[in-house]
Amino acid sequence: MAIAELEEKGKAAKAASRRLAFLPTETKNKALVNIAEALIARKDEILAANKMDYDEAKASGMSEAMLDRLMLSPSRLEGIAQDTRTVAALPDPVGEMFDMRTLPNGLQIGRKRVPLGVIGAIYESRPNVTIDISCLCLKSGNAVILRGGSEAINSNMALAKLAQEACYQAGVPQGAIQFIESTERALVNHMLKMKGTIDLIIPRGGAGLIKLISENATMPVVTGGVGVCHTYVDKSADLNKATAIAYNAKVQRPTVCNALDCVLVHNQIAKDYLPSIAKEWAKANVEMHCDERAMVILKANDVILNEVKNLLVPATDEDWGKEFLSLTAAIKVVDSLDEALEHIAKYGSGHSEAIITEDYSAAMRFLNEVDAACVYANASTRFTDGAQFGLGAEIGISTQKFHARGPMALKELTSYKWIIFGSGQVRP
Amino acid sequence: MAIAELEEKGKAAKAASRRLAFLPTETKNKALVNIAEALIARKDEILAANKMDYDEAKASGMSEAMLDRLMLSPSRLEGIAQDTRTVAALPDPVGEMFDMRTLPNGLQIGRKRVPLGVIGAIYESRPNVTIDISCLCLKSGNAVILRGGSEAINSNMALAKLAQEACYQAGVPQGAIQFIESTERALVNHMLKMKGTIDLIIPRGGAGLIKLISENATMPVVTGGVGVCHTYVDKSADLNKATAIAYNAKVQRPTVCNALDCVLVHNQIAKDYLPSIAKEWAKANVEMHCDERAMVILKANDVILNEVKNLLVPATDEDWGKEFLSLTAAIKVVDSLDEALEHIAKYGSGHSEAIITEDYSAAMRFLNEVDAACVYANASTRFTDGAQFGLGAEIGISTQKFHARGPMALKELTSYKWIIFGSGQVRP
Repeated sequence: MAIAELEEKGKAAKAASRRLAFLPTETKNKALVNIAEALIARKDEILAANKMDYDEAKASGMSEAMLDRLMLSPSRLEGIAQDTRTVAALPDPVGEMFDMRTLPNGLQIGRKRVPLGVIGAIYESRPNVTIDISCLCLKSGNAVILRGGSEAINSNMALAKLAQEACYQAGVPQGAIQFIESTERALVNHMLKMKGTIDLIIPRGGAGLIKLISENATMPVVTGGVGVCHTYVDKSADLNKATAIAYNAKVQRPTVCNALDCVLVHNQIAKDYLPSIAKEWAKANVEMHCDERAMVILKANDVILNEVKNLLVPATDEDWGKEFLSLTAAIKVVDSLDEALEHIAKYGSGHSEAIITEDYSAAMRFLNEVDAACVYANASTRFTDGAQFGLGAEIGISTQKFHARGPMALKELTSYKWIIFGSGQVRP
Repeated sequence: MAIAELEEKGKAAKAASRRLAFLPTETKNKALVNIAEALIARKDEILAANKMDYDEAKASGMSEAMLDRLMLSPSRLEGIAQDTRTVAALPDPVGEMFDMRTLPNGLQIGRKRVPLGVIGAIYESRPNVTIDISCLCLKSGNAVILRGGSEAINSNMALAKLAQEACYQAGVPQGAIQFIESTERALVNHMLKMKGTIDLIIPRGGAGLIKLISENATMPVVTGGVGVCHTYVDKSADLNKATAIAYNAKVQRPTVCNALDCVLVHNQIAKDYLPSIAKEWAKANVEMHCDERAMVILKANDVILNEVKNLLVPATDEDWGKEFLSLTAAIKVVDSLDEALEHIAKYGSGHSEAIITEDYSAAMRFLNEVDAACVYANASTRFTDGAQFGLGAEIGISTQKFHARGPMALKELTSYKWIIFGSGQVRP
């Protein structure tokens, strides 16, 4: 029964996708502005639905961190509305022509950007994802089938309904945004088999969800999200920058994939740097898993020892390559840039890696040699984010190399076709 | 035993790929020129190996068409050498920086093109593929594991050895080109499980091979090659162009994926056009599977009937959407551009489609609305080819939308990473 309904939604999305591919930019932007306005105008209705989810989740013992992700508020709705307006203001990726040129035989040939078709989104917790993904898919001319987490079902239903109504009022083809109202587990498995209907699956959630989907989907999947992020403090680092950046990367939002997991410190700067960052981290209650050399340095520093000692834990092998998603950081002293690069190659997840250095050649080597979606010199890994990168929003962060890498937004939801203007040419 | 060897080759390719990513363009181009020179200098050795394959294939009853694909000759080797020089002359895709810009917070951010890593190529018949794929992978900084068809094993072994020696002499890291010498079937299955070692699988061969691989590979696959190609002759078509193009698209090389399978003719031009193309096709012995209206028109034309009548066959339902790969074409009369578009949407394989028209709006509608890798106005679909498109060569033709579409060459064998030059930025 529910599976038949899912198949119907798939067919409707496919049919809508053919018309979405040619929808005028103006119509798409009008729909996005409608969504932004509705988020404000209908905030009571959305917040009431969200309260149902929140109360139920709280009663069932959900952690504070998860409750925080689930919760909507007037200011959060305003933020989502603002993001929606940002997407409306971005250039339409569909129809962009590139690599256009004339061949010696007179054929005029190039590539033209087209939507992928139907995007399947399977996500957990944060209800803003319902709007983010709907907006990015709409602007990039794709239909979308949304499957949110059961913990946010009322919020997601209300938001999806709002998005649908706002879009259809603007003239977007019916069926462009599909929402799966049932929380039956079997529906996810069935979605993964709908090759031919769904052109791309985007999972957003924990490692378990991503593994399930990438192993079972019959259509392309963009995986990512798991971020084991290192910041390497080179011997030539500016200590103030190094402290501010590592503090920001760990503390500003510790529960997300681009947060710092491990700081690698060059031994020639470790005595100066470690007390400085440890003191700052201690203020935010960051637990520090230190390798032997880092521990010796921190324990030898009388000035800060009282403030940090309760937070120092000897590192074990499991700490390297671990995504903490909490106020915990691993600390390791290394003897060279090469050792840092080797550590990152071995333990990084290919998400975001940073070097803090004033040495030009060290910065260039790091940027060249680290094999990750996003590689930074002298900045916080927390910037790995579609909005921060100037892409307006993101549908996910890819840690694979195929199709797209790093934050994915409008352009990454498209393909292209070759178009050829001839005047009677035949192949010799 | 053989599987352990394959694993070793995989490890060696992975290790080589890390160094290939940073190999100077000069070294790669020197290696390509070495290959081109060796193909000429060592032609006796290559042709002797090819003769073994050819004689064995002939004795075992291989068809003339297949024997032709298998055969090498001095002039074919010169052609392959020329293609290799063309790849050497193309710009190096690795390291290209794009989308580079400065964000309001001063971060300088952009994307830098990087190789995919290790490419697995599984292919049949034509031994030139061994050199084509090796050259494209080398230039794009990827290692490659080659698995050719058993019918060409001696030719492929000799060519792979030649390529390896030519590369390593130029300073390319050992292990960059791996060739599987065993023709054991189980090795293909094992290759498909080497996720983490092989980053992308490219199958080149018949529909059976492509299906096997796309259903069983654990890593990304670029599929394609199956081409059900239509040419629509609009009511406003220039009859000379329409005849020359449909003739070329069907006859110039009928055994390949971009050859014409079906011509759709507007009813207002059918009486003039059909006798013209039928007469030409008849000279090349093209069998014509005609729908009822086409049959009536051709049979009513006394001028050409004698020349074509033995080649006219009533079309059946199986003729629509069929890839003939031979001197056979389906013919259908349609009442409008819309009907042609619908037919193509229903029966096309998303490979190459063409319209012949002098009507501007009809051409633009066709180019916009047909959902295929390559869409032509007034040219032969036979141009769908990396070399013809100016890409130097091709590693395959993708009929999927994900990652790459149409002829794939150097750029399509790369990914990118985001690089961010900061000056101490933290996320607010």
